Amino acid sequence: MPQPDTFSAFAARWQEPVEARLRRLLPPTDTPPARLHEAMHYVMFPGGKRLRPLLALLGCAATGGDPERALGPAAGLELLHTYSLVHDDLPAMDDDELRRGRPTCHKVYGEALAILCGDALLTLAFEAVAPAGAEAVRVLAEAAGSRGMVGGQVADLAAEGAEPDLAAVEWIHDHKTGALIRASLLVGALAGGGATRDLGPLAEFGQCIGRAFQIADDCLDVTGNQQDLGKRPGQDEAARKSTYPAAIGLSASLQAAHALVGRAEELATEIGSWTAGGLESLSPLLRDAARFTVSRFS
Amino acid sequence: MPQPDTFSAFAARWQEPVEARLRRLLPPTDTPPARLHEAMHYVMFPGGKRLRPLLALLGCAATGGDPERALGPAAGLELLHTYSLVHDDLPAMDDDELRRGRPTCHKVYGEALAILCGDALLTLAFEAVAPAGAEAVRVLAEAAGSRGMVGGQVADLAAEGAEPDLAAVEWIHDHKTGALIRASLLVGALAGGGATRDLGPLAEFGQCIGRAFQIADDCLDVTGNQQDLGKRPGQDEAARKSTYPAAIGLSASLQAAHALVGRAEELATEIGSWTAGGLESLSPLLRDAARFTVSRFS
Repeated sequence: MPQPDTFSAFAARWQEPVEARLRRLLPPTDTPPARLHEAMHYVMFPGGKRLRPLLALLGCAATGGDPERALGPAAGLELLHTYSLVHDDLPAMDDDELRRGRPTCHKVYGEALAILCGDALLTLAFEAVAPAGAEAVRVLAEAAGSRGMVGGQVADLAAEGAEPDLAAVEWIHDHKTGALIRASLLVGALAGGGATRDLGPLAEFGQCIGRAFQIADDCLDVTGNQQDLGKRPGQDEAARKSTYPAAIGLSASLQAAHALVGRAEELATEIGSWTAGGLESLSPLLRDAARFTVSRFS
Repeated sequence: MPQPDTFSAFAARWQEPVEARLRRLLPPTDTPPARLHEAMHYVMFPGGKRLRPLLALLGCAATGGDPERALGPAAGLELLHTYSLVHDDLPAMDDDELRRGRPTCHKVYGEALAILCGDALLTLAFEAVAPAGAEAVRVLAEAAGSRGMVGGQVADLAAEGAEPDLAAVEWIHDHKTGALIRASLLVGALAGGGATRDLGPLAEFGQCIGRAFQIADDCLDVTGNQQDLGKRPGQDEAARKSTYPAAIGLSASLQAAHALVGRAEELATEIGSWTAGGLESLSPLLRDAARFTVSRFS
């Protein structure tokens, strides 16, 4: 079957299988401790676009693997991403009351259960990724841990109120958001049983779109409205967060995001040629995925 | 080299290699974010007896594997155990101020960093266990997640103040403590490249000593003093925790622990014979390890 050549068609093909796998991975809400399992379902469903799982499936397709085989690890990336949202929202951290238009986990279930719900999702993420093998687990752990996402969150909290500085903002974004987006593509590539090859270009592709994605997110906090965002806009500025717009202004931020997408499109052309012999070229799909990361501007 | 035949000799042989591996796994405190890495070192060193890593190395030896090869995964079990202590101590959970005789992580580094320190240790645990393979990661995740340790902590918090009930106490102990002790033996067995065999007896051995260990811990909270415990005694009773002594009294609790050790010793004899062809029999060592779990009574 030829791959769709737009990211939205690819998403339409794979979002439901990702949902189905997530439902299968989460323990049923009638098994003990029921309240914990309820909280896990509450934060996982309904979800967002499931961007990270879709990127994992793209990474899998890019190496000629079978996306069907990568569904579990792809779902694991969403579990891990969601744990990070649950913990970031806690009173001791960003103290957010709304997420995707609904009360945050600790608002509904209390702080103790929210901490434990995040812990359980993080743990389940590794269970879901395990079938992709030791290297995939290692890649994910490195991206998610103190030298990756958790490190980025620590730096983000420490930078609150500090004078915005581009180098610091880039470090925070690359770690807090970029590392997991990059890892999504790599875990997918390792999960699908595709060809073993140098994944450097895929890693750089992930790094570019990860950074572009976070810049877009920063800009949306300035320009968006509550209905589209599912949370109050302007919170970054109110909390004096280190963001791109705060460091270099809105217009230069948009330019930087588009430059990153441009570089990602170049890499997409190269990566797309990997599978030229067997499948339809994936280049148009990967280029469209890169553009998608900033399409939330419009 | 013949194995030592007492658990304390086995510990003397392997504690320093476990410490060395832990030091190698933790990012240096001068790498960013330095304060997070400092916090991770603070909670890991100095440590306790490193019981879970030692049990992992025992599990490895029991299947004829090379403990040297299991050191990374063994260290991973201590990282995971320590994350659970850091999160359990948080104000939203048990709100403890002392751990191993020192101020708890959130007392020194604040609540946000303590949550993130735990998250980073949990993540690093999976990185450390990854080389043992997909099945070891799966076993650990199941033992640590919502159907294991995290589930036990949820049930423990929910049971505070409730009428003590033996079935509930057993459920909590098996999940909160027992699951990880059992997993330590199994991960070790999977990590060392030993013979593939039915690990059922090793799992039951782990379950028995895990339960005995937790009963001993409950009893110590009643009979111990602050200097030996490194924390204030009597806290379980003050918090109306679900414990063995609260459910069935101190004397019946001690009897239950000794019965479990007795069963573990039987299993130790069986497991020890696995390696009879190659190595010295491990039975005396495993039997002594079982007795060790309750030796903290004296």
